[in-house]
Amino acid sequence: MYLSFLKSMEDGKTRYATSPAIAKALKLNEVQVRKDLACVSSKSGRPKIGFDLMQLIRDIEYTLGYAEVNEAIVVGVGNLGKALLTYPGFEECGVKIIAAFDHDPNMVGEEIGGKNVFALNRLRTLCERMKIPIGIIAVPEESAQEICDRMVESGIKAIWNFAPIHLTVPDDVVVRDENLAVSLSLLAIQLKEKQ
Amino acid sequence: MYLSFLKSMEDGKTRYATSPAIAKALKLNEVQVRKDLACVSSKSGRPKIGFDLMQLIRDIEYTLGYAEVNEAIVVGVGNLGKALLTYPGFEECGVKIIAAFDHDPNMVGEEIGGKNVFALNRLRTLCERMKIPIGIIAVPEESAQEICDRMVESGIKAIWNFAPIHLTVPDDVVVRDENLAVSLSLLAIQLKEKQ
Repeated sequence: MYLSFLKSMEDGKTRYATSPAIAKALKLNEVQVRKDLACVSSKSGRPKIGFDLMQLIRDIEYTLGYAEVNEAIVVGVGNLGKALLTYPGFEECGVKIIAAFDHDPNMVGEEIGGKNVFALNRLRTLCERMKIPIGIIAVPEESAQEICDRMVESGIKAIWNFAPIHLTVPDDVVVRDENLAVSLSLLAIQLKEKQ
Repeated sequence: MYLSFLKSMEDGKTRYATSPAIAKALKLNEVQVRKDLACVSSKSGRPKIGFDLMQLIRDIEYTLGYAEVNEAIVVGVGNLGKALLTYPGFEECGVKIIAAFDHDPNMVGEEIGGKNVFALNRLRTLCERMKIPIGIIAVPEESAQEICDRMVESGIKAIWNFAPIHLTVPDDVVVRDENLAVSLSLLAIQLKEKQ
């Protein structure tokens, strides 16, 4: 949130960002902002002047690990898979999607967002050979666990799961669930609380 | 997370769910699970037997407000918009997407996931007339603030924003940012911490 706000301030003229201004724009507590920025900033802000905007952006990006690049693959090229393959923002966040896989023979051989779609049975060979650490699951709920198992067998250590089910994985694999329905319902709850 | 796990337990045979079993499956602390479930459960679990599975599911759904239905519209029917319009899980979470809008005349009149795509200039009339509370922004970054402003003018009070920018809204409007790039980079950080 800080990063996207600070980037929106980059207009070639603004050189400094102050905690009070950031707090106000993001509707956050000023003390919290000060604490958060102190965690990531290599140089503390200058009193009454604030943080050097470009330096602060670099510091946040460094903290978030955007400097390193991790490679990822997507399984499932339905609407969601296509959206992920054409999403513009991943690379600057340090993750590069390099290929997609699908069980549908009509999709195999296609190119989406500049990435090739391979048959599912090539998942293991390709991931092992290229040592891909991240797998993205964009298949329907009923095949998600099976795809997850195949990713784990292929040496993948981090899974971004868009299927609304709980995946079972070995202890050395990290799963991040992106349950869009839950996210939308949380917005509905926020709305209710506000009214 | 609890809800999707409990739903995955519904096999027609399992009648009870215990905190230790839930904690183990979700890799959570048992005390935390007990506390969390106590917050939502209308009847406390029975010692050594656990919670009535169906009752617990209903209690969590009630807490999350899934019983009420909020209507939503999507602006932008690119890959992401299409993925959202065809996503199967929103309705059971209490949100119903009823229509889509796009500025592209080629898309207007199309039907995606059973929802009509209207021209953007019909946004206000339709939202005002139907008192739509939720708007979903699935347009590129550069048009997101403009679409946000139009949503606010149309009486929308809650915005789910997929564009990776900070939106400026009046105080009575809630924004939930769904920054996919940040989410993916958080997974990369978890992976790094684990290694």
